[in-house]
Amino acid sequence: MQRLRRLRQLGLAYLAFPSAEHSRFTHALGALAMGTHAFDELVGNAPERFGDSVHAAYQRRLVRAALLLHDIGHGPFSHSCESVLEVRHEARTGDLIALPEVAAGIADLDVDAKDVLALIVGDADNRYPALRELVSGPNLDADRMDYLLRDAYFTGVSNGRYDAEQLIGSLRVLERDGRLVVGIDRRGVVALESFVMARYMMFASVYFHHTTRMFEHILHDVLRDLWPNPHALDPIEEFLRWDDFRVLNALDEARSEAARALRNRVRVYALAAEFNAERDLKLFEACEAALRERFGPQNVWADSQAQLLHRLPFGIGEESTVWVDGPGGAVDAREVSDVIAKLSGKAYWRKLFVRRDSTSSGEAEIVSEARQLCAQILAKL
Amino acid sequence: MQRLRRLRQLGLAYLAFPSAEHSRFTHALGALAMGTHAFDELVGNAPERFGDSVHAAYQRRLVRAALLLHDIGHGPFSHSCESVLEVRHEARTGDLIALPEVAAGIADLDVDAKDVLALIVGDADNRYPALRELVSGPNLDADRMDYLLRDAYFTGVSNGRYDAEQLIGSLRVLERDGRLVVGIDRRGVVALESFVMARYMMFASVYFHHTTRMFEHILHDVLRDLWPNPHALDPIEEFLRWDDFRVLNALDEARSEAARALRNRVRVYALAAEFNAERDLKLFEACEAALRERFGPQNVWADSQAQLLHRLPFGIGEESTVWVDGPGGAVDAREVSDVIAKLSGKAYWRKLFVRRDSTSSGEAEIVSEARQLCAQILAKL
Amino acid sequence: MQRLRRLRQLGLAYLAFPSAEHSRFTHALGALAMGTHAFDELVGNAPERFGDSVHAAYQRRLVRAALLLHDIGHGPFSHSCESVLEVRHEARTGDLIALPEVAAGIADLDVDAKDVLALIVGDADNRYPALRELVSGPNLDADRMDYLLRDAYFTGVSNGRYDAEQLIGSLRVLERDGRLVVGIDRRGVVALESFVMARYMMFASVYFHHTTRMFEHILHDVLRDLWPNPHALDPIEEFLRWDDFRVLNALDEARSEAARALRNRVRVYALAAEFNAERDLKLFEACEAALRERFGPQNVWADSQAQLLHRLPFGIGEESTVWVDGPGGAVDAREVSDVIAKLSGKAYWRKLFVRRDSTSSGEAEIVSEARQLCAQILAKL
Amino acid sequence: MQRLRRLRQLGLAYLAFPSAEHSRFTHALGALAMGTHAFDELVGNAPERFGDSVHAAYQRRLVRAALLLHDIGHGPFSHSCESVLEVRHEARTGDLIALPEVAAGIADLDVDAKDVLALIVGDADNRYPALRELVSGPNLDADRMDYLLRDAYFTGVSNGRYDAEQLIGSLRVLERDGRLVVGIDRRGVVALESFVMARYMMFASVYFHHTTRMFEHILHDVLRDLWPNPHALDPIEEFLRWDDFRVLNALDEARSEAARALRNRVRVYALAAEFNAERDLKLFEACEAALRERFGPQNVWADSQAQLLHRLPFGIGEESTVWVDGPGGAVDAREVSDVIAKLSGKAYWRKLFVRRDSTSSGEAEIVSEARQLCAQILAKL
Repeated sequence: MQRLRRLRQLGLAYLAFPSAEHSRFTHALGALAMGTHAFDELVGNAPERFGDSVHAAYQRRLVRAALLLHDIGHGPFSHSCESVLEVRHEARTGDLIALPEVAAGIADLDVDAKDVLALIVGDADNRYPALRELVSGPNLDADRMDYLLRDAYFTGVSNGRYDAEQLIGSLRVLERDGRLVVGIDRRGVVALESFVMARYMMFASVYFHHTTRMFEHILHDVLRDLWPNPHALDPIEEFLRWDDFRVLNALDEARSEAARALRNRVRVYALAAEFNAERDLKLFEACEAALRERFGPQNVWADSQAQLLHRLPFGIGEESTVWVDGPGGAVDAREVSDVIAKLSGKAYWRKLFVRRDSTSSGEAEIVSEARQLCAQILAKL
Repeated sequence: MQRLRRLRQLGLAYLAFPSAEHSRFTHALGALAMGTHAFDELVGNAPERFGDSVHAAYQRRLVRAALLLHDIGHGPFSHSCESVLEVRHEARTGDLIALPEVAAGIADLDVDAKDVLALIVGDADNRYPALRELVSGPNLDADRMDYLLRDAYFTGVSNGRYDAEQLIGSLRVLERDGRLVVGIDRRGVVALESFVMARYMMFASVYFHHTTRMFEHILHDVLRDLWPNPHALDPIEEFLRWDDFRVLNALDEARSEAARALRNRVRVYALAAEFNAERDLKLFEACEAALRERFGPQNVWADSQAQLLHRLPFGIGEESTVWVDGPGGAVDAREVSDVIAKLSGKAYWRKLFVRRDSTSSGEAEIVSEARQLCAQILAKL
Repeated sequence: MQRLRRLRQLGLAYLAFPSAEHSRFTHALGALAMGTHAFDELVGNAPERFGDSVHAAYQRRLVRAALLLHDIGHGPFSHSCESVLEVRHEARTGDLIALPEVAAGIADLDVDAKDVLALIVGDADNRYPALRELVSGPNLDADRMDYLLRDAYFTGVSNGRYDAEQLIGSLRVLERDGRLVVGIDRRGVVALESFVMARYMMFASVYFHHTTRMFEHILHDVLRDLWPNPHALDPIEEFLRWDDFRVLNALDEARSEAARALRNRVRVYALAAEFNAERDLKLFEACEAALRERFGPQNVWADSQAQLLHRLPFGIGEESTVWVDGPGGAVDAREVSDVIAKLSGKAYWRKLFVRRDSTSSGEAEIVSEARQLCAQILAKL
Repeated sequence: MQRLRRLRQLGLAYLAFPSAEHSRFTHALGALAMGTHAFDELVGNAPERFGDSVHAAYQRRLVRAALLLHDIGHGPFSHSCESVLEVRHEARTGDLIALPEVAAGIADLDVDAKDVLALIVGDADNRYPALRELVSGPNLDADRMDYLLRDAYFTGVSNGRYDAEQLIGSLRVLERDGRLVVGIDRRGVVALESFVMARYMMFASVYFHHTTRMFEHILHDVLRDLWPNPHALDPIEEFLRWDDFRVLNALDEARSEAARALRNRVRVYALAAEFNAERDLKLFEACEAALRERFGPQNVWADSQAQLLHRLPFGIGEESTVWVDGPGGAVDAREVSDVIAKLSGKAYWRKLFVRRDSTSSGEAEIVSEARQLCAQILAKL
């Protein structure tokens, strides 16, 4: 657990938002607090769904253990690390929970390690479907409830706040096609709207910030140099030795340009243009082609929201979003909320970057030329 | 001015949000502060747009005087009063500014009263088009910038907050088709998004709250009883004698059911159903018809967003929203922001109310029956 | 109850802090919420002190009813009104609770009206001593816990905030000399310190603000003109007809200078000097004498903290402050907290005012002369 | 500069306050912002004190450069590191500023490096005495103004907030005995009081927190093991290689009990008793003696406020605190503020710790026995 203190919740985002230096450790404590509060609310509203008091107490211990441990499988700089090492953090979680000292800790909490693991990485056929949604569901999980607020607090982005108390107070266990799901009471729609908006704004302002994305792109190369063998961290003891701080120290010895750029915050790429909507796809492609032709393909990087591992879209196509209880039965949130309907669906955000040293002209000229190139294409249409 | 201390900024909203007791006086001070800050930002970024320093200083005094006085034409319970007395508050403003004591005050500020009036109620051909937008424009005016934050603070609705400092910091005077307009710098798009979202949420949560709307509906009858002659307050001295507090005192003597309901917060109507989107219009009509048939037309009240005097939609049809400066020239905010595009356009919010004493059955039965009736219609489609 | 919406919590403080327009109604709801939270904490920590579950539930209803009603005896502008009408608001409370409609409301809550009254105005021999402390105790009552935070929020004075959640979380029922008292757990000392500091700062910044105090002084004369007969409001129906708004309307007709000053915020007096500590008493007397001699006794007003009805000093002399539980038994808060010891004890705050029209010289000259006069006396010593 | 991102502002405090993970880098940016704001206020109020506009602009660049760089001399875990390596961070600052790359950066800012250094570590005979106070003065420096608010934000301790905007708005350059000093306007006394209170509370709650202090005590042994030679980091290149993260990584290899305790947050000591006031000194000595006798001197640790490198006392003895301007000339803040007088002076805070494995009894028994021992001594007197 203490290792999570050395993994930053937002990875490299501190290079764009200096105060975003908070760790996964504090997030784990926060998710634990949020989830406990949410669980108590669900039980208070429908105790009959949680069995007798002994069984309800077991489920409370279980959901708390799972939330505390839900991120222990993360390596340094999480998602970048995963793609270099070709292993998802969820896969690590099972190994870690099996370690003697972790197993002993779980046993002390008087819960079954198999149940804990199932809540964190389990599939929909879980014995405790409502708890699984609280821990690792796609929309109303305590993980997300905590990280949105926490990331907003530590980046200072005021739009990421939402009314957590009111949202949690409106959580309900509903029955839907014979299965228990976590939904909300009709009175909680405004709080849910604020939650969906906060999520949207945090993606726009923070998670997809061009400075952060650029350094994450660079980090990928750095990690590949650091671990040329993708199985280097497969042994669990070796994996546990690594954290963000050790990677940053290792950069000190590394002499590659990328390593120096990361350590000294040298912005190797500049943002040339960005695109937000489906109708912009053609423009995006035209701009990308023009930049590649002018500066060379190796000097242009196209980023898209789909490359983020966080899932922005709140409900795509037929998939349900959040169930809302009401006089005529549960309905999808998009039907009772205009704003949720508008903010749901696939996102088409894209950014185009160009290397600042693409040609022999000065940096400022390259950036200005790239932006003008895109501006002309945009003006034409 | 001191009379504004006895006019509540949100009229009857305190019957839904108990702490929304703030006055138009504090709003006038806030709009003054916001507008001064915005003016200084505009001048700092493009001093050449504001003439020499003497002229710039005159414009600063002018915009401050106009913001301080922009609401003096309001009567008690503003919009309800206007519809009963058939006179808009802007029309009063001219009369008030001509009063000797107000004119003397304006003269002390060393500004021309005609210029002040033109900023408050003027048309687009103003001598100072950018200042007019700051005072009474449709989107980026200091009036709105203040009241959104203020109403959010005093109702306690957390979603109404937006990043005012960043929004004001990105304000720019732009030239568009040969006219000066107030727009924003490209870096301010996220702040503008938060502003548009805050506006949307304040409408959904506060301005169109069913309890407030219900009491405003009742108030209309009360005011009509109080002033059977719509010209009763035409003499300016008589108009000035009235404020929210005097109306509330007058209710004490009035013996009508509506007056008692207002004074003692008796909720005469109950919400039967609400509708948010264009596709719901048919459903709305079907529900309204069913309720009218069952409870009698006189016992059903259909409210729609269009009856609000605050303008929700952020840009309708071809009309521009906010100009955003960028490398390829100024573009409409909807083109650079996905979320602004989604939240713009006409709104189709509707609410259906039924009187709690519509039939001889108990209140609870009436409300429950009305809701079931609507729920059945909704479930069918 | 709805009448409390027309009594401002801070009386005339809005003339110094424009946004301090909140009512006693919102304070009553806040005290109810705080007190319920505090009660639940006390019961959760020591259920055996509250009897069986039926009895504990009764006490919960009781403390809630008392907090909701604790201020119903207040007249317009509370304390000023009391001194003019020679009746304390607590004395009214009994009469009001006996009114048929209030009695019916209390009966609906299933509590005994005598018990409610005893918690609000009762003496120390109450059947429920811990509840009485929560409702109307001198230090840890929910009344004070709410009004400090609320007044800080609505005046915008940031120093009035304290950590209410932590303070309430540390409340404990302790036994002291055979009686139950409300105290705190040792871990709550820092929260208690923040509470004591907040109280101190709110007195310094808000309750004893010179502008508010000056208008309260003027109000006294206005009310005496309004009700020349101190028994004018003795009949309860007459008393109930009056609220802040009716008084302010009545001022409109009144033609005295004081009435006009209040209605138009004319600052009749100016602050000449202020004194904070015991050692300043001699200086204060010298300054008062000098001002009276120079401007005439009728033009000088000396205000002291002792004239406030709110009690600032946190513990005087031998009297205990707050009991703090610890390994060696309960001790007084002054013994475990350096800062509480320092901020306890009698306060010696004084202010000297002079009428702005005391002599035939201009206003500015009078104020400046009065301040110089005092400054010279201060410089000499 | 980027190295400051790897030095935590509060060292080990994150072991007591998990979210206190913010770096000296963000503090440097914050001090820069606060100091710029303060400088502009001082100049705006008395431009004549800062020479012509060219000279004023130079001083603005100078104070900004000094604030940005004021902490670059800090090593890992700052104060612990200083005592082990026997060198103060101020001494390093000169060496660092002389490094070619730093010197080039300072030259780019168009300021004289000698002036910068003099503001950071200089004595009272500085050419720019007011600027020196802003950078490194004992009371009204931008360093302190930022770190109090920042540490309060990141620990979540609400009592550390004060009204920075009002305090800065009241800053004035005053002349005192022929020298320029930074003081405040009389209207800023309430803001200054809140600042003094915040400082007091942050010491009580955060800087002298027993958990932090205990780990700092342990860290001392760890660093001594890590650098047996106190001159190990004298070469500036070696010094620059070290940061908090490298030390924490080095702990991984270290096998001492202290290193393990730090890395895994094992609380080796328990708090036995704490003392706050001068009158407690005798009690403190009696308790310390009793604990040493019972558990052995090597198992008892006595901590005192004097061992903190932050300076708590706000004015000791004859030394002045903050000058407050007023009608009769500048006076010391203790004379115009009751609460500042009370919170000034020497502090006598002490804590007694005992090792949890002092004897063969279980941990819980040792802690409980130590607390009882002290409680008995306290109860006797």
